[in-house]
Amino acid sequence: MTSFPSKERLAHIVYESDDRASKNFDLGLLVLILLSVLVVILDSVREIHLNYGSLLYWLEWFFTIVFTLEYLLRIWLSNDRPGYIFGFYGIVDLLAILPTFLSLILVQSQYLMVVRALRFLRILRILKLPEYLREAALLASALKNSRAKIQIFVGSVLTIVLVMGSIMYIIEGPENGYTSIPRAMYWAIVTLTTVGYGDISPNTDLGQFMASIIMLLGYAIIAVPTGIVTSEMTFAKSKTEAAGEHTLKICKTCRLQRHSADAVYCRQCGSKLEPPE
Amino acid sequence: MTSFPSKERLAHIVYESDDRASKNFDLGLLVLILLSVLVVILDSVREIHLNYGSLLYWLEWFFTIVFTLEYLLRIWLSNDRPGYIFGFYGIVDLLAILPTFLSLILVQSQYLMVVRALRFLRILRILKLPEYLREAALLASALKNSRAKIQIFVGSVLTIVLVMGSIMYIIEGPENGYTSIPRAMYWAIVTLTTVGYGDISPNTDLGQFMASIIMLLGYAIIAVPTGIVTSEMTFAKSKTEAAGEHTLKICKTCRLQRHSADAVYCRQCGSKLEPPE
Amino acid sequence: MTSFPSKERLAHIVYESDDRASKNFDLGLLVLILLSVLVVILDSVREIHLNYGSLLYWLEWFFTIVFTLEYLLRIWLSNDRPGYIFGFYGIVDLLAILPTFLSLILVQSQYLMVVRALRFLRILRILKLPEYLREAALLASALKNSRAKIQIFVGSVLTIVLVMGSIMYIIEGPENGYTSIPRAMYWAIVTLTTVGYGDISPNTDLGQFMASIIMLLGYAIIAVPTGIVTSEMTFAKSKTEAAGEHTLKICKTCRLQRHSADAVYCRQCGSKLEPPE
Amino acid sequence: MTSFPSKERLAHIVYESDDRASKNFDLGLLVLILLSVLVVILDSVREIHLNYGSLLYWLEWFFTIVFTLEYLLRIWLSNDRPGYIFGFYGIVDLLAILPTFLSLILVQSQYLMVVRALRFLRILRILKLPEYLREAALLASALKNSRAKIQIFVGSVLTIVLVMGSIMYIIEGPENGYTSIPRAMYWAIVTLTTVGYGDISPNTDLGQFMASIIMLLGYAIIAVPTGIVTSEMTFAKSKTEAAGEHTLKICKTCRLQRHSADAVYCRQCGSKLEPPE
Repeated sequence: MTSFPSKERLAHIVYESDDRASKNFDLGLLVLILLSVLVVILDSVREIHLNYGSLLYWLEWFFTIVFTLEYLLRIWLSNDRPGYIFGFYGIVDLLAILPTFLSLILVQSQYLMVVRALRFLRILRILKLPEYLREAALLASALKNSRAKIQIFVGSVLTIVLVMGSIMYIIEGPENGYTSIPRAMYWAIVTLTTVGYGDISPNTDLGQFMASIIMLLGYAIIAVPTGIVTSEMTFAKSKTEAAGEHTLKICKTCRLQRHSADAVYCRQCGSKLEPPE
Repeated sequence: MTSFPSKERLAHIVYESDDRASKNFDLGLLVLILLSVLVVILDSVREIHLNYGSLLYWLEWFFTIVFTLEYLLRIWLSNDRPGYIFGFYGIVDLLAILPTFLSLILVQSQYLMVVRALRFLRILRILKLPEYLREAALLASALKNSRAKIQIFVGSVLTIVLVMGSIMYIIEGPENGYTSIPRAMYWAIVTLTTVGYGDISPNTDLGQFMASIIMLLGYAIIAVPTGIVTSEMTFAKSKTEAAGEHTLKICKTCRLQRHSADAVYCRQCGSKLEPPE
Repeated sequence: MTSFPSKERLAHIVYESDDRASKNFDLGLLVLILLSVLVVILDSVREIHLNYGSLLYWLEWFFTIVFTLEYLLRIWLSNDRPGYIFGFYGIVDLLAILPTFLSLILVQSQYLMVVRALRFLRILRILKLPEYLREAALLASALKNSRAKIQIFVGSVLTIVLVMGSIMYIIEGPENGYTSIPRAMYWAIVTLTTVGYGDISPNTDLGQFMASIIMLLGYAIIAVPTGIVTSEMTFAKSKTEAAGEHTLKICKTCRLQRHSADAVYCRQCGSKLEPPE
Repeated sequence: MTSFPSKERLAHIVYESDDRASKNFDLGLLVLILLSVLVVILDSVREIHLNYGSLLYWLEWFFTIVFTLEYLLRIWLSNDRPGYIFGFYGIVDLLAILPTFLSLILVQSQYLMVVRALRFLRILRILKLPEYLREAALLASALKNSRAKIQIFVGSVLTIVLVMGSIMYIIEGPENGYTSIPRAMYWAIVTLTTVGYGDISPNTDLGQFMASIIMLLGYAIIAVPTGIVTSEMTFAKSKTEAAGEHTLKICKTCRLQRHSADAVYCRQCGSKLEPPE
């Protein structure tokens, strides 16, 4: 930026990402977000906290001030201020800086850490990059298309977890770690998703038999979300290809439709094709 | 419901779900079912049982009475009483209320809990919602289509579990936790489904080698159910799309519909087709 | 079977499965195989062995004699005796009866159990059922089609297991349970296949970082076999459908091909279609 | 090889793999690589090292000398020496022999083992086999096609790991094994990938609830890579098939090939097509 840019120019740089400067702005912001997240992660490691705690503390304040300035800049530049401030990204931007300021007031460690976690929401701002928005839109439509399938899938998973959890609670009982139905349901989820920590596992023969059934169920059920996503993706892909392969040219003479993209003459009657209007 | 509805109207509300009132009835019932399930879950948590046990006890009776009234209402309204009472949903509805009444007679805790679990079957009544019925039909046909594939899949899984289980029982033996072939088969299922609790795991070199093989087998075999479900879904989807591709031309002579997009003459009677208006 | 059947008839019943009697023969055999397998399983459970050991012992001899008679019957009926005896199923049939006879000679328990395991091979005879043979043929062709993909998949899996195993062996070392590269490779397989027993797991920070990488790798790699199987199944399905949807009729007048199955007149030029020769 | 081959011939044998001799050379090399890898693996097993250590030591030197000779041979034969030496395979070949020589100089065991691991890179040379190169190219293009999808997938996985890890670190805390955010992130990866060692697992009710959510998330997310790979494979397959469907008609006028099955006139120049002979 050779000369100081106008307000319109600044607004473009900050809110759009279609030219050099605005792309660089987004990228720089992304790097800052990742660094600020890295600081929080490192600070959580005992040894590092003891040795470099103060350095990380000041780094944190540096990032907080930078993000605060950016937040104020966005408010100043926005041509729809309430729309930004109370919009999704405005709230995320605020949540990303609040914790550090709050940490001055409430010193009780546990709370402090809770609000610290909120800072990770900064990473959500990466989602503002355009290609992510496009993909997200595709994904959203795919989900909408197979809403019914997903409902029945989630419904059956929850039913299995509920029924199996309570059955195992009855079979195994508290003496084997199934201290309550919620805990037994936690075990059922651990098993159905094939995670299998082993912190709770069936000990009775009947319990192991029931567990085998739920495992084989999970084995079959895991196929469903895959099937949904895959069929949606395959279909979206084939549609894109088809669109690329065929123009909507129609032969005026013999009414043949769907000519391949490079067709100049009708492959059926040989008469010249008009360009698609 | 402004005035008290006629019996026909009530029957419609209870058994159908195509208008406002009947939908609300189903929805209200669904909420009651979920609440009654929640009560059983909470009651299983020691702390909650000690503090709120009596409250939950009365809540349970409240739900049981409501469902009993609904059950009797359904019998009264049904125009095919034996068909309902001995049908799938009739039995489910009965099983959903019996346990609480039984709990008055048989006080032996273990049994009491067994019948309690039956109450979760109430949740199956959600399946009566129409969109679930449609999806279930689709799923059923998909399963029927690939019955042979599923049979061979289940067959090979059981064979692997059987052979691998017995081999591991011989290799590892009781001293490593493989106390019997059924238990070794339980381990084989835990491994093949990639759950892997670790409550039983091979200790000998040969055992670990065999385990590696069964794991890699499971890695390949898990692809089969996914493939079945996905190909069925993809095909069902493409068929729906194809139906959309057909033009809505109708042959004026023989009334044949769904001509392919490039059809100029009716493929059935040979008379010329009018262009789609 | 009213009268005693001829030898040809018997051979048909034993070797084919296209009519009532032969189907029943296969089915009865299948039931016997499953029962004999069940006996071995039950016999491995300590309590059952102590209480019903002698009963199971005699049941085992009963099954062995039945299968021996069947084996001799097959040899007698076969019109290509060496072909049967030294063929796959002939050997399986022999292996299914040998162990029990061997158990008379070699009494040393460990060996006895090894040969006992062989008896499970009886279950392989289920594969003789026709629908299994058909499906197996389909599967075999699918595997042949994507042989290169499978090779590169297995190759990369083994490479990852090898490299990751040795790296973890160096990082974690014997003090953390990675006592040798083969054991470290066993851990790598347990991790890559997402089984995760937890009998061996990384303790150092670097080890946990490497483990995270191999887990995410496994997460991506598990997609490959699924992709292979699914694309093969989807393609096979679509081909079957396409064959059903289009006849190979060609319009003699305008050379239009791929008319829909119910087409009587060419949809392009309206001239009558000859039936496919 | 009856007579000693010319340098051109040797270069062909070493660098190509399109005829008998060159194929045998590649195959022999592959066997040597696998054997040398096997030696390193066996040497890592304590018992074997104690008994056969010296034998393995000499075998290792034998392989190293053979690979050194091959390396020099390749340099001598290459018609673009710097291109080979500083190319990918040249560096791999060098790394494959260096460790053993280095082991003479630096005797400190730990370092020695690190460089030893490098020798496994020899296995990468298998990738030089042509069919692997083709498949790798296909795979690469597929990855390029769905780059955006993969980015958003990896991005969301990392975000989930980051956010969930830090939340669990706050909920469970060091007393339950979540000693730092990086360790909590390691746990999140172990859970999300459904590996589930159980070395770290949630103990608090809230922690188990959060864990259940991340597991179900992982259950859904695992569908994405599968969907990507499968749709790419299915599409690639269908494209190959489609190519097969095109008739081999060639327009005599403008030489355009690959006309669709029902083409009567060339879609490019409009001249009549001869029927396929």
